[in-house]
Amino acid sequence: LRRVEDDEGDELLAKVAVPVVRLRYGELTEWTSIAVLPVCSSTGDKESITMAPTSTFEGKFGIVESESGWKRWVVLPGWDPLLSIGNGVAVEFENAKMLPWKTKKWLREEEVMVIIDREKKEVKEEVQFYLVSDMEDKLKVERGKDVKDSDLVMGPVVLVVRPPRYGDDDQVELTDWEAS
Amino acid sequence: LRRVEDDEGDELLAKVAVPVVRLRYGELTEWTSIAVLPVCSSTGDKESITMAPTSTFEGKFGIVESESGWKRWVVLPGWDPLLSIGNGVAVEFENAKMLPWKTKKWLREEEVMVIIDREKKEVKEEVQFYLVSDMEDKLKVERGKDVKDSDLVMGPVVLVVRPPRYGDDDQVELTDWEAS
Repeated sequence: LRRVEDDEGDELLAKVAVPVVRLRYGELTEWTSIAVLPVCSSTGDKESITMAPTSTFEGKFGIVESESGWKRWVVLPGWDPLLSIGNGVAVEFENAKMLPWKTKKWLREEEVMVIIDREKKEVKEEVQFYLVSDMEDKLKVERGKDVKDSDLVMGPVVLVVRPPRYGDDDQVELTDWEAS
Repeated sequence: LRRVEDDEGDELLAKVAVPVVRLRYGELTEWTSIAVLPVCSSTGDKESITMAPTSTFEGKFGIVESESGWKRWVVLPGWDPLLSIGNGVAVEFENAKMLPWKTKKWLREEEVMVIIDREKKEVKEEVQFYLVSDMEDKLKVERGKDVKDSDLVMGPVVLVVRPPRYGDDDQVELTDWEAS
C-alpha cells in the first residue's frame, strides 16, 4: 500500500487505523497479484452482504471459483489487506458521508468502496472500524468501541477504496491517507 | 499480443489463423487493461456455454456487472481479441487434443482455454476456427470450412490461451504461436 510521506512522518502513520487508498487508472499493471471480490450495494438488501459468495483462485489459469453464482464483481490490485482477507466483500457507497472520521468535503461527496472481512464478526476494541447496519437498516462505518456487543455488525473494515481521479499525480495520492 | 519472430518471419505470421497465447505468471502486471470472462467447462453441460452471462465494466471502480449470477470467472490481460469481443466466454479443456492443427505432443497434453464470441454464430469460410459440439455432444474446435451450415456451432474462436509454465523465458514464448 502507498504510505503516508509528509512532515508528520511516523506519527501520522501510527494514527492510521484503517487504510484508505485511491485506485489509479491502469493501476492493476503495477501489481503482481489481484484480488477479486463480490460487490454489494449499500442501498440494496443487507442480506446480500451475508449472501455474497466466497471464492478462491483455482488451477493454472487462476480461475475464480465461487461458492455460488454472483452478478457483480470487482478486480482490485493485490493490496496487502486484501491478500490476507478471510471472506471479503466489497460494499459500494454512493458517497463517503458515513465514514466516521473527519475529512475534506469533496472527499465526503465521492463514491467509495468499503471492503470488509465477514469471517471476523467478533468486535474487538483494538480493531479499527466496523461496517454496521443501524436501527433504520442503513449501513455505516463505526469505531470498534462504539459497536461492542452489537448484533448489527457486518464485519471489520479492512480497506476503504476511493475511485480513480483524472489528473491525479503521485503527490496527491501520497497524501491521501487519512488518520482516525 | 506476442508476435511470431523466427526465421520464417512474415510468412508464418500470415498463416496464423487464430492467436494462441501462453499466459505468464504475473502477466496482468504488464497490461493496462483486463478482460473478465465467465468460464465454462468443456465436460459440463453444453447449455452453460449459451447460458453464461454477458458482462460490462461499470462506474468508476470498473465493477463487472453481469446479466445474471455466475460462479466461475477468469481475469485475463486485455489482449486485443478480448477487447473487441462482443459476447465472450472461456471454455476450459483438460487437454488440447481437440485443436485441429498439428502441434507438439506435450502441447496437446496441456489444459487449454478456448475463448469464443457468442455474438457471431454465423459461419464464414474466411473466418478461422469455430467451437462446435459434435454428434456425441462433445466440444471441439473445427475449421470454418468444415462446419458451414452446422447447427452445432457455439461461436468463432477468438483466442486460445495456454497455461503459464514455470521456467518460461521470453524466447520460448515468442515461438509459441501456431500456424494453421
